[in-house]
Amino acid sequence: MSLTEIPGGAGAALRLRAGQAVRLINTHGSQVVDTWCLSAADTTEYVSVEHTRRMLFRLFPGEGDTLFSNRRTALLLLEQDTSGCLHDTLFACCDHWLYEFYGCAPEHANCRDNFIGALARCGIAPTQVPNPINFWMNVPVLPGHRLALHAPVSKPGDWLVLRALKDVVVIFSACPMDITPVNGEDRTPKPVAYEIID
Amino acid sequence: MSLTEIPGGAGAALRLRAGQAVRLINTHGSQVVDTWCLSAADTTEYVSVEHTRRMLFRLFPGEGDTLFSNRRTALLLLEQDTSGCLHDTLFACCDHWLYEFYGCAPEHANCRDNFIGALARCGIAPTQVPNPINFWMNVPVLPGHRLALHAPVSKPGDWLVLRALKDVVVIFSACPMDITPVNGEDRTPKPVAYEIID
Repeated sequence: MSLTEIPGGAGAALRLRAGQAVRLINTHGSQVVDTWCLSAADTTEYVSVEHTRRMLFRLFPGEGDTLFSNRRTALLLLEQDTSGCLHDTLFACCDHWLYEFYGCAPEHANCRDNFIGALARCGIAPTQVPNPINFWMNVPVLPGHRLALHAPVSKPGDWLVLRALKDVVVIFSACPMDITPVNGEDRTPKPVAYEIID
Repeated sequence: MSLTEIPGGAGAALRLRAGQAVRLINTHGSQVVDTWCLSAADTTEYVSVEHTRRMLFRLFPGEGDTLFSNRRTALLLLEQDTSGCLHDTLFACCDHWLYEFYGCAPEHANCRDNFIGALARCGIAPTQVPNPINFWMNVPVLPGHRLALHAPVSKPGDWLVLRALKDVVVIFSACPMDITPVNGEDRTPKPVAYEIID
């Protein structure tokens, strides 16, 4: 399948049958992609970072890790990851309340609206917005359990593969954040790309 | 107001008007209390650990910290905390799927059912089960971002005060976990107590 581009700041949803996979490419290297996964059979079941941490006993997922649902079912496998960097699971996605907090215009794009909008285009009305996995997002744990938002350390062309272990819907949002350096020191969201692989 | 006891392994919900507070007492010192808070005006708004971390830039809340909702509204204040220990926000509450994973009987008590049951007794049917704050739960971050379940370091009689900043419903569950040492090395859930203070 050919590559599909997601513009910087935008979202997309795609369906995977069990056994299929999606390859997500960080074209420019600096773009965080907030990622969710819902069970296609029952969209109230979703990849839950709080359940995944408890099953893995690790703060951040890495290559080879299974991603578990809020019913402790294995939904996805993070099969490959060229970056080897941290992928944040600690911070909620950005939302219009965060941009209001920063004094931005009310119509500022945000990952929460991208999640809801991408699912609406699939005919799905989610009952909640789970905490995403924020691929390539660099949130180090500092002394005293302090957290910080640093620019990504991933490189242009880094990619990862998510393998579906059940029939799922995967939602990506190329995070629109342009206030903090989370998407690079130039604070400019950039496109990413994906392809479905069998 | 007099003390209300929550039996070990059981849950309770209570309403606080803005300005009221609840004092929660770890009678035996070793009991983890999974805690949720919903806005009384709209119970789809709740204290969100993933939003609170992002607003505090800290992994765990401590004395003096505001607890934010999934709409980035200040709902609660952790006004006092005699323990000074970590309060886990990383792990989902226990649920029947976890006890099935451990091979327990299907009717094993769990915090998820305690949350739903306590709210049902208040006439509230929650649309989701947020990640709780697990008061006194000792989940250290080890080298390599590994996580562990250790016995609590809190002492008998430790207490904390949660002050309502809006009208809220607070839900406590004296965690029924008896497989891991999360509620002490004797793996025996014990009662805790609370009182509403004005």
